[in-house]
Amino acid sequence: LEAGDRKQFLDTFLELHPTDQVDFFIKLKDDRRKRVYDYLSPEDFSHIFEGLDIDDQKRIYQELDEPYSSEMFNNMFADDVADFLEAMTGGKAEDILQKMDQEEAQEVKELMAYAPETAGAVMTKEYVSITSTEVVSNVIDTLRKDAPDAETIYYLYVVDEVERLVGVISLRDLITAQPTETIENVMGTRVVSVDDDMDQEDVAQLIKKYDFLAVPVVSKQNHLIGIITVDDVIDILEEEATEDFGEISAAKGATDVNVSSFKAARRRSPWIIMLMFFGLITAGVIGQFEETLEEIVLLAVFIPLIMDSAGNTGTQSLAVAVRGLALGTIKKGSIGKMVRREFGTGIMLGLICMAVLAITVTIMYQHWMLALIVGFSIFCTLSIATVIGATVPLIINKLKLDPAIASGPFITTVNDILGLLIYFSIATALLDFL
Amino acid sequence: LEAGDRKQFLDTFLELHPTDQVDFFIKLKDDRRKRVYDYLSPEDFSHIFEGLDIDDQKRIYQELDEPYSSEMFNNMFADDVADFLEAMTGGKAEDILQKMDQEEAQEVKELMAYAPETAGAVMTKEYVSITSTEVVSNVIDTLRKDAPDAETIYYLYVVDEVERLVGVISLRDLITAQPTETIENVMGTRVVSVDDDMDQEDVAQLIKKYDFLAVPVVSKQNHLIGIITVDDVIDILEEEATEDFGEISAAKGATDVNVSSFKAARRRSPWIIMLMFFGLITAGVIGQFEETLEEIVLLAVFIPLIMDSAGNTGTQSLAVAVRGLALGTIKKGSIGKMVRREFGTGIMLGLICMAVLAITVTIMYQHWMLALIVGFSIFCTLSIATVIGATVPLIINKLKLDPAIASGPFITTVNDILGLLIYFSIATALLDFL
Repeated sequence: LEAGDRKQFLDTFLELHPTDQVDFFIKLKDDRRKRVYDYLSPEDFSHIFEGLDIDDQKRIYQELDEPYSSEMFNNMFADDVADFLEAMTGGKAEDILQKMDQEEAQEVKELMAYAPETAGAVMTKEYVSITSTEVVSNVIDTLRKDAPDAETIYYLYVVDEVERLVGVISLRDLITAQPTETIENVMGTRVVSVDDDMDQEDVAQLIKKYDFLAVPVVSKQNHLIGIITVDDVIDILEEEATEDFGEISAAKGATDVNVSSFKAARRRSPWIIMLMFFGLITAGVIGQFEETLEEIVLLAVFIPLIMDSAGNTGTQSLAVAVRGLALGTIKKGSIGKMVRREFGTGIMLGLICMAVLAITVTIMYQHWMLALIVGFSIFCTLSIATVIGATVPLIINKLKLDPAIASGPFITTVNDILGLLIYFSIATALLDFL
Repeated sequence: LEAGDRKQFLDTFLELHPTDQVDFFIKLKDDRRKRVYDYLSPEDFSHIFEGLDIDDQKRIYQELDEPYSSEMFNNMFADDVADFLEAMTGGKAEDILQKMDQEEAQEVKELMAYAPETAGAVMTKEYVSITSTEVVSNVIDTLRKDAPDAETIYYLYVVDEVERLVGVISLRDLITAQPTETIENVMGTRVVSVDDDMDQEDVAQLIKKYDFLAVPVVSKQNHLIGIITVDDVIDILEEEATEDFGEISAAKGATDVNVSSFKAARRRSPWIIMLMFFGLITAGVIGQFEETLEEIVLLAVFIPLIMDSAGNTGTQSLAVAVRGLALGTIKKGSIGKMVRREFGTGIMLGLICMAVLAITVTIMYQHWMLALIVGFSIFCTLSIATVIGATVPLIINKLKLDPAIASGPFITTVNDILGLLIYFSIATALLDFL
């Protein structure tokens, strides 16, 4: 296919869906890729470039000569250019912007000015806006011309003379409307819009809730400045889920599958080493009770059980809290209610486990005092573990601190230490009876 | 607002977005709700009913009289009716279907016949299909009439005389096409479609990959039988992420935030109790080494450290594997590659931790033999823990077993037991040197 015939290649290739073009392109060898740059116009290639992930984009960018890449950037959606430039270092972004069209570059700069993960940073500038005095049939005619440049034409946003958002009409409603009507009479005036500094996760939840295909982004003065489309929302939701995943498993920044052993070890080791030092703290806690342990070595046997139960209960509560925050089912601020619920759950879990454990240990070890110590420790530990697991992420969320602090292993370690402290304290207090 | 004036209520209420109508409706008291049924036609109310979650739907359904609810079901999307009926027990579903229009009921029955979580089960029947011989302007005219009944009109599917899918055209392309063209000349013929028995997660990944707004579902004979829209995909992705979340934290089926303490405890306790029994196995393992422990009580101090490190490393690998499967970055079947990668990562993590730990323990406890035992145990444990964490979910996925077996706490427990076995075996072997 790729062996020389330019026209035939173009005919077949451009028929493909852009996503398939990307799949095809990325598998090519070096010299074949070069030929693609030759064959494709910067505009056609811009669709492929948009579909690459950031590491590939950087690599491919090196291969392009400057006039070609500048023209390509001009043809890309502004938000995709902004994403790429944000990943460039050392003044390279400035260079690229200068070589681009003034107007295009300006749009990209505006997008780059927003804080990451806000509506402003993920929105696109390529939307269709109309005024309320236009007539339906004229709007449809205009759409025929503008359609290729916009990211979606399925919602048309209606603005007044100073670009304030006043209404919205879906393409669906537009084509079912009388051709002679003015937009004013057919548009919806209850427009759901988001502020440019809204968190991307909240935007995603909003679009999900309303089943929108896109939502308009407005400035503080209600000026329409961009839109966020549903395909961006899917990416945002996946991104946030991956973040939450890392949070619970301390695999933050290490959920990448296609890296070498060495790279994976380098990314994961800081967590493992940090957590190992927490393990040394736990070791120190047990060390404090060495005398008790020397009296009754059997106590050591239940260390894993206390730790596992504390850890598992805490992680369950953590999962509930993290997921609840992500899905928006926990209202930010309802910490008090959550504490009460989890404390209640913990007490009940504790009572059940205490009963089961006391009976099992009495039977297995013929030692009812040991059973009592282990059972009562479990009860106290679980009651607290649920509260810690559920509330630490909520508090962190409220204080807007780095959620990594609430990672699963960290909470597990805290619960381990608490559990063992309770266990050995009770055991030491009752030493005379053992 | 709700205090009597029917006309005014209808005017305001029906202006609201259906999602807002639902929010408003669900907060009403009993007698107010009754008035809503009076005021709203079954058709208008069907949009509210569609927006409720399943528990509310069941409750509200009880309040409706039969002719009203039958008419409401007739007006709902077939997939929503199917979802509701699947949650009904005791022949109730049959009753409802019999009271519905023949044609509507037939569609619902077809949907209910598919296995859960397949494309067939989540698709909707309300799509627009056209034939390739039609003329663009006529199609647009038809759309004007059909638009309100279809779930999306942004893709039109082109079928031949025996309902086989032969092409697709977006509304965007349709309105930019010459009004006099026949569909044949403007439609795309490379249609991406899914089979009716495809897993819903794979469908979601496909739509995400191509940034589609909808994808057609076809039978084995390539007959068009339904479509899946992007808003369904968002729900599917969230559902799957929640499932994966439960998998890693043993909170399966318990990630619900708005339940009472009692209910939460009842849902979570089976896991905690089961895992507690695993803890008893671990206790048994340590019990085997009671003599060694009696000689050197200090060994007990490092039990938590060994366990935590094994657990954390395993959970990291698990998170990478589960997330990779969910995002499709791990190809099903590439187990061999994964095992090698993770084993390599484990060895490197093990070497780093061994070095750090040996030095720290020597300094803290002035006991180089102990440092050697702890360090070497960590090395062996981590090398294995990564492999177990990453490959167990892959194997389970391949064997199509219940993924709950691969839950985080289970893998952690397996790694705990292995780690402690290694630790105490090494210590026992070197007992004479301690």
